[in-house]
Amino acid sequence: MKHHFTDTIFALATPAGTGAIAVIRISGLQAFSIMEELFETRKGTSLDFANTKSHTLHFGLLKDGDVIIDEVLISIFKKPHSYTAEDTVEISCHGSVYIQQRILQLLQKMGARPAQAGEFTLHAFLNGRLDLSQAEAVADLIATQDANAHRLAVQQLRGGFSDEIKKLRESLIHFASLIELELDFAEEDVEFANRDELKKLIESLQHTVFQLLNSFQYGNVLKNGIPVVIAGKPNVGKSTLLNALLNEERAIVSEIAGTTRDVIEDEIVLEGLRFRFSDTAGIRFTEDVIEKIGVQRTHDQVAKSTIIIYLLDVLQFEKTAIEKEINEFSSRLDPASQHLILVLNKVDQTDFSEFKKQLPSTTLYISAKTKDGIELLKRTLIDQVKQNSTGDEVLVVNARHAAALQKANEEMLQVIDSINNKKTSDILAFHIRQSLHHLSEITGDIYTDDLLENIFSKFCIGK
Amino acid sequence: MKHHFTDTIFALATPAGTGAIAVIRISGLQAFSIMEELFETRKGTSLDFANTKSHTLHFGLLKDGDVIIDEVLISIFKKPHSYTAEDTVEISCHGSVYIQQRILQLLQKMGARPAQAGEFTLHAFLNGRLDLSQAEAVADLIATQDANAHRLAVQQLRGGFSDEIKKLRESLIHFASLIELELDFAEEDVEFANRDELKKLIESLQHTVFQLLNSFQYGNVLKNGIPVVIAGKPNVGKSTLLNALLNEERAIVSEIAGTTRDVIEDEIVLEGLRFRFSDTAGIRFTEDVIEKIGVQRTHDQVAKSTIIIYLLDVLQFEKTAIEKEINEFSSRLDPASQHLILVLNKVDQTDFSEFKKQLPSTTLYISAKTKDGIELLKRTLIDQVKQNSTGDEVLVVNARHAAALQKANEEMLQVIDSINNKKTSDILAFHIRQSLHHLSEITGDIYTDDLLENIFSKFCIGK
Repeated sequence: MKHHFTDTIFALATPAGTGAIAVIRISGLQAFSIMEELFETRKGTSLDFANTKSHTLHFGLLKDGDVIIDEVLISIFKKPHSYTAEDTVEISCHGSVYIQQRILQLLQKMGARPAQAGEFTLHAFLNGRLDLSQAEAVADLIATQDANAHRLAVQQLRGGFSDEIKKLRESLIHFASLIELELDFAEEDVEFANRDELKKLIESLQHTVFQLLNSFQYGNVLKNGIPVVIAGKPNVGKSTLLNALLNEERAIVSEIAGTTRDVIEDEIVLEGLRFRFSDTAGIRFTEDVIEKIGVQRTHDQVAKSTIIIYLLDVLQFEKTAIEKEINEFSSRLDPASQHLILVLNKVDQTDFSEFKKQLPSTTLYISAKTKDGIELLKRTLIDQVKQNSTGDEVLVVNARHAAALQKANEEMLQVIDSINNKKTSDILAFHIRQSLHHLSEITGDIYTDDLLENIFSKFCIGK
Repeated sequence: MKHHFTDTIFALATPAGTGAIAVIRISGLQAFSIMEELFETRKGTSLDFANTKSHTLHFGLLKDGDVIIDEVLISIFKKPHSYTAEDTVEISCHGSVYIQQRILQLLQKMGARPAQAGEFTLHAFLNGRLDLSQAEAVADLIATQDANAHRLAVQQLRGGFSDEIKKLRESLIHFASLIELELDFAEEDVEFANRDELKKLIESLQHTVFQLLNSFQYGNVLKNGIPVVIAGKPNVGKSTLLNALLNEERAIVSEIAGTTRDVIEDEIVLEGLRFRFSDTAGIRFTEDVIEKIGVQRTHDQVAKSTIIIYLLDVLQFEKTAIEKEINEFSSRLDPASQHLILVLNKVDQTDFSEFKKQLPSTTLYISAKTKDGIELLKRTLIDQVKQNSTGDEVLVVNARHAAALQKANEEMLQVIDSINNKKTSDILAFHIRQSLHHLSEITGDIYTDDLLENIFSKFCIGK
């Protein structure tokens, strides 16, 4: 569906502030006629946009009547060959805030309207240039902070995820059409669709949806960073380890047990993976109210983390107690979604060969103080994440998509259940249509104004 | 002189930070070959820059090997039709800081070099695209904060000032050539140049230089804002007046005399003129050391201001004392460069018709508290500045240009003096050459590396 916008919109497209240049974008029905009035070519004439090719650049003056606002370079994009699929001009001006404002004011004076957040991308979506998940990828791409979030956003923008959903939808539509045909002949009780084949098909589709859903946790972790917590009893060296990992004096280190009461957050990027570290208060029984809150927050923090570094102190080593401690701590973790790395600290301070036999073979031996073993710990963190990834698979990174997939998944399970229980065609048809509906929400083949409002209001102005 | 740069330089051209888009500029010998390796067209091929027209835009992928960095739009400018007069590409990418950095790193990896501050404009200058005063105008334009600074920078960028200097140089060169000819025939004691005509010519040139020099103070004021000070005895309402002018609670207002000890600065833009206001401590004799410093700073502030609003209090009005006070204060001012506006405050609090007869006719009557008369005061400020301006004249706004004009002026006066005193041709020739030298420094026909370093280091990166 191609929309017909009557407003011509404009906005600053480059970051706010002073720079060498700034770019102001104007898009819509009047974009060319407005620029014909404002722009003067080198020859002192106005540019004949009708006879000017798309994707060309022109140097000249931007003028408000007789007053020269700036020497500018304009880029011309003719519909549908622009970002919005509308006639668009990008004005590249000198990057003074004053000049930027003068030009924005001038465009408004000429009858264009300041664009709302995400409005250029909204037009691109409504004009069919992007589907909804691609539009969302644009916002993700701009918010990108590391290699993984970047790769996922590029993949989604390039339509990798949309293609997957499209394939699912097409199979479902084919399936639905057979069932709908049966509805037309309902009184004759015919089955155009072989139920065994249908079941096989829907099971395979549901399996794909389920896999996509499963990828969400991992995709989300890649997009938002991997939460890592450093846990362990008081004074085992958690803050020193955090400092060693971050390579800077981030946490306050002291020899008094219980120094760290706040959950301190910081992050490092290793091979494109963003690890978000929390240091925590030591876990022990305490009557100190403030420290108690700290311990509770530690447990909360552990529950929210994907990787847990559990730190032991070689100087506090007692075999029986340590086994109990590790077991007790491990029992709180969810083995499906959380990974424990056991680390024995302060190995520079005593001979630990004896303890080695008593600890699991995966245990790492470090000195946070001398930084011995820190590189190996970093390697272990990277490998732990990378083993979950083939690198090129389609991952779900967006909570809205995950929610829609969840609903589609439930409906597909209903379809399978209906086949198994030999329910009538109209019940099958209902659940298939519901599955389709939820998949269509992802790509925006079905949308509500509220949904669009919700998505595009999170964009920046100018995009 | 056309330079041959071997380095290919690049930089972020848009303001730092996140935006809808960012623009990265790459210029130099390798700009096209580097982009041929990094950019992939819609068709999945690399772009043949040799057979691609200048001033065209191309959508495609920016790739680091197989990894897609971003969907980008590139602008192609072929030498000499670019800002630097070199082959140039502008990459318009998604405005994520991460993507900006990835692209900058990639360009460096490909053998290009990060541009230094102002280096693109330096290349433009050395390649003869701009003269030095135009290059300086680029930096001024980017720093522009109000209509007047903007107008002056545009005028200078468009070559208005350069043209004026060029005309002067051409006249001088003609003059010089006649004198140099005399030098060739020195032993024959001939005069090719009629001394009376020469004197008339050089006097006219010197007059032009002198006028330009005189415009510097006004030009400088327009460029940097007009310094205005509000002076007056303690507790006459200076801070209240400042607030009324600024229309916000900027200064701390209290009824205790002596509250304002710091010189508070703020500014308003009226009809494109930027007025920089300083509030000051009241002027009175005091034993309080801190307040004494404040009073000294007030005198300093008055000395630095172009417009002085001297505020009187109708409630403290005594005829004889006031005449003395005004005369004493006025005697400190430089009538050539400073303008005094007398203002009687608190006129809402008593009948002041009697005082009116005793004050100069130009006195303004206001109540800072009720804002009566504030608009008229603003009008008076605007008119005071505008009466110095015809609006279209060439103004000197740059201290470097003023210094060079000053030296050229001195040398021209020496020429006139030499003619008057019938000095020999070689002395005349020397002073003419010196005058030419100083004028040539303005446009950069003569320059030193230090001068360029000094000018361009003040630019932003990317311009």
